[in-house]
Amino acid sequence: MPESTKPANRLTGERVNRLTDKPNLYVALAHYPVVDKRGDIITSAVTNLDLHDISRAVKTYGVKAFYVVTPLVDQQRLVQKIISHWTDGAGAVYNPARRSALELIKLKDTIAAVAEDINGIETVYPKTVVTCARRNTASTGYKEIREILKSGKPLLLVFGTAWGLADTFIAGADYILEPIMGPTDYNHLSVRSAASIILDRLLGTDK
Amino acid sequence: MPESTKPANRLTGERVNRLTDKPNLYVALAHYPVVDKRGDIITSAVTNLDLHDISRAVKTYGVKAFYVVTPLVDQQRLVQKIISHWTDGAGAVYNPARRSALELIKLKDTIAAVAEDINGIETVYPKTVVTCARRNTASTGYKEIREILKSGKPLLLVFGTAWGLADTFIAGADYILEPIMGPTDYNHLSVRSAASIILDRLLGTDK
Repeated sequence: MPESTKPANRLTGERVNRLTDKPNLYVALAHYPVVDKRGDIITSAVTNLDLHDISRAVKTYGVKAFYVVTPLVDQQRLVQKIISHWTDGAGAVYNPARRSALELIKLKDTIAAVAEDINGIETVYPKTVVTCARRNTASTGYKEIREILKSGKPLLLVFGTAWGLADTFIAGADYILEPIMGPTDYNHLSVRSAASIILDRLLGTDK
Repeated sequence: MPESTKPANRLTGERVNRLTDKPNLYVALAHYPVVDKRGDIITSAVTNLDLHDISRAVKTYGVKAFYVVTPLVDQQRLVQKIISHWTDGAGAVYNPARRSALELIKLKDTIAAVAEDINGIETVYPKTVVTCARRNTASTGYKEIREILKSGKPLLLVFGTAWGLADTFIAGADYILEPIMGPTDYNHLSVRSAASIILDRLLGTDK
């Protein structure tokens, strides 16, 4: 953006480039370890629109990378095919905005491999923040996570597909984010909706 | 919920039932009049996951009804088939939470027919709030719309599919909601993400 149109920092009067003031946040969408309807641990199938919707939300809120996590080779090939269509194929010409979002996707076998990748970038492992639709006594509020983001320390926000992340994985995370609540007791948002709302709660402006 | 577990109203000390304190808000998803990539007015096709994601968000935030608007008879049949599967068919047994969300869908030919339906319920026409990803000089902030919701007057929040609502329709609305912004200039969220975020901005709790 041209220098003159950059918003001024209210304290210092300096012009700041909003595009370079990115939060030190990474997002992962896990297809393992998640649970099915009965609570059994499964590997879920990749949903095409999860990739599109969450990559566009991630791009909107300035997240550094969007990791899609699946240990299944055929599912990894599917993800690669979807990304390629929109970043190298006909889709890139048809819809450049879609390309710039899907370019943020990185494919990994495990969440541990995601943490390694971030360590390679940041030279420190990220703290992990998990999301869960159920209330948890140890949960952390949005305000506290916003404060951590302001500190500049890297955070990895992990979303689960299917019926959510496995309890064993949740138990090992650094923070469990409070569930999203409206004025009802219904808490069955899609992972696409939940990821969008949580990014807005953490990073949205002009609310 | 049992009487004893109802939260107390801080001012009056009375126990309030959160489930009955629903906002006087209606949501419509328009497939006409919307524009395509070139800005030409079209009727868009219905996307299955729009119905699922937005009905679940609408249910979460206590919206009174979710109108799906399309003038195309074959598309209306498709919507009806999807709803029936989850409300009467195998899906209703498999996933009751999905049923209670999709039950909020009402199918209408036009946005005018939606306003008529609401007038029949409320005995007054709703004010219309439209959403637009582009900045508009006449736009209204989230705080102002929250104030209107508190007044109890009925509001109809209209989302456009494809490349968004037609300008002629936007010009006739009572309020144009400010676009959703994060810390970047990218503003290409899916309608599923945008609807979820806007409902959370207007009605979310514990943020």
